[in-house]
Amino acid sequence: MERTEISEIGGEFALIDRIAAATNTTLPETIKGIGDDAAVIDSGEFYTVISTDMLLEGVHFDLSYVPLKHLGYKAVAVNVSDIAAMNAVPKQITVSIALSNRIPVEAIDELYDGIRSACEAYSIDLVGGDTTNSRSGLVISVTAIGTVAKDRVTYRSGAKPNDVLCVTGSLGAAYLGLQVLEREKQVFLADPNMQPQLDKHEYVVGKQLKPEARTDIIYDFIEGGIVPTSMIDISDGLASEVLHLCKASGVGIRVFEENVPVENPAMLTATEFNLNPITVALNGGEDYELLMTISQEDFEKVKNLSEITPIGFVTEEKGAFLVLNSGQLTPIKAQGWEHFDAESK
Amino acid sequence: MERTEISEIGGEFALIDRIAAATNTTLPETIKGIGDDAAVIDSGEFYTVISTDMLLEGVHFDLSYVPLKHLGYKAVAVNVSDIAAMNAVPKQITVSIALSNRIPVEAIDELYDGIRSACEAYSIDLVGGDTTNSRSGLVISVTAIGTVAKDRVTYRSGAKPNDVLCVTGSLGAAYLGLQVLEREKQVFLADPNMQPQLDKHEYVVGKQLKPEARTDIIYDFIEGGIVPTSMIDISDGLASEVLHLCKASGVGIRVFEENVPVENPAMLTATEFNLNPITVALNGGEDYELLMTISQEDFEKVKNLSEITPIGFVTEEKGAFLVLNSGQLTPIKAQGWEHFDAESK
Repeated sequence: MERTEISEIGGEFALIDRIAAATNTTLPETIKGIGDDAAVIDSGEFYTVISTDMLLEGVHFDLSYVPLKHLGYKAVAVNVSDIAAMNAVPKQITVSIALSNRIPVEAIDELYDGIRSACEAYSIDLVGGDTTNSRSGLVISVTAIGTVAKDRVTYRSGAKPNDVLCVTGSLGAAYLGLQVLEREKQVFLADPNMQPQLDKHEYVVGKQLKPEARTDIIYDFIEGGIVPTSMIDISDGLASEVLHLCKASGVGIRVFEENVPVENPAMLTATEFNLNPITVALNGGEDYELLMTISQEDFEKVKNLSEITPIGFVTEEKGAFLVLNSGQLTPIKAQGWEHFDAESK
Repeated sequence: MERTEISEIGGEFALIDRIAAATNTTLPETIKGIGDDAAVIDSGEFYTVISTDMLLEGVHFDLSYVPLKHLGYKAVAVNVSDIAAMNAVPKQITVSIALSNRIPVEAIDELYDGIRSACEAYSIDLVGGDTTNSRSGLVISVTAIGTVAKDRVTYRSGAKPNDVLCVTGSLGAAYLGLQVLEREKQVFLADPNMQPQLDKHEYVVGKQLKPEARTDIIYDFIEGGIVPTSMIDISDGLASEVLHLCKASGVGIRVFEENVPVENPAMLTATEFNLNPITVALNGGEDYELLMTISQEDFEKVKNLSEITPIGFVTEEKGAFLVLNSGQLTPIKAQGWEHFDAESK
């Protein structure tokens, strides 16, 4: 048998493309298969959307500084975020866990407290799952189900020239929170008597440990009669998601450096780590904000929503560029997380 | 923090009961949450059912004798089986995989060949999933979605006194196939020049490596206008599933030893391993046949279906008993697989 490494074909996204290319859908009920934030199924009166994510100890989380309750909450939030990215309302989740039989029941209770707390926050029901033994670390697999009116579903592929590129909230903080946690872990490992210094970094650490899915925006859109032309959630960094929208929609995008929203506490932490805040926003990941394109017509209504910032526009000419404060253009490249990198996430 | 072992509270099923007891559902669309083969969601014109399973290398499968193509097929089939157990027709699946970045692309292709082959066999679409890195072995998480007419959905909880207990196909072969594979693995490990002797055991090994979900029976039921009063799929062994039906329905069940279907090749392999075929059928697991209760009225129609065997009946008096060939009664106890046992599955 030949042996081709995943890195040789181009990593995780190339692998997904390879799987998608070899997969056909045949049922009339299957509206959208692999290739968006969620699959879309025709349920007659509306569309059902479904998304799934798997989180592994040592790859996606480090139990030495992630409390189990936060982990449970985050596992739900990141899946709800994928449902929101389809402009859909989340309804139910299933949660499967694999765990060592040495993990105490009290720890499992903590994890499920976080899961149930997220269910309450997003008004969704935990309806099923699987529990099994793991010979290595903790594995959590969440599937989220949502619904959306057929004329409101939003794909990655609908961006049109002259649409306004907008983002919710602000970017970069979750990645910086991870840097703080990793640094304090190293300090602690070097000297277990040292207490972690997290109080100065509460904001960024909070964004890392307890991100929120932007379902609030989806309800705002329903109320305001707004349907984005395309949308994606920011899990791998702004750069990676801009490229996804460009590729799926067959368009180009320009992002203005000066408009990319980064909060002050994130700015300060970036400075402390000698990192450029814009680079962090572009490549950090795990913000779980929504990136979308809005038609000029709908943009008049979006302007009134305080949580949404216009950061660029869609061009007919292909290519994704950052418009620097100097006015120069620089190509946007995906340097975001790929889970087949050796780096932990 | 207190430390209670999972085994102290009673293992996997007790853990699921604990999670279920602490979980409420609040949405009117959520018809059935944790506690059956699949969750049930109201989609307006029909019910959508959803089920999920996670399979881990070293716990659920051994890549030293399970071909990846078969593994992919089986991962889909066992989830489709859960959909069938709700009397529903499977429609879509999502598949998430975590794998070492040392696994070659060719091996991933093999796995997905098996997944796609199962999709074709069951007329379902692969619509999404997640791919990620694993620091240990292969993890596969499958979620299956199906639909069922609202008046046809079948729970574990509907069994009524005097209903006929029926099972599809035959039992015990999958467990015996596993014994053969484990034996040949030990022979091979002791002397790598020895070739595995599987030809004599093709039937039982086939049942272990490539089980089929009984969706054929679901279509037969639709055609015949038959709705079982309760149903469950046999993943952990007949004994365990009989106890689930008793508990969920608040009834008792008697199973006639002489009626439990075991095929000749399974009988022969059981003899070779000095195992009682009935014990294997009761406790072996992984048969993925359907166990159901049928009303006296519907039983007249079921009689004509060759793939269904009546093996017992439902009693008002609680308790599950095996009626031995001698006429004596012996209580049915769950000795089936629990994934928190140290045993591999």
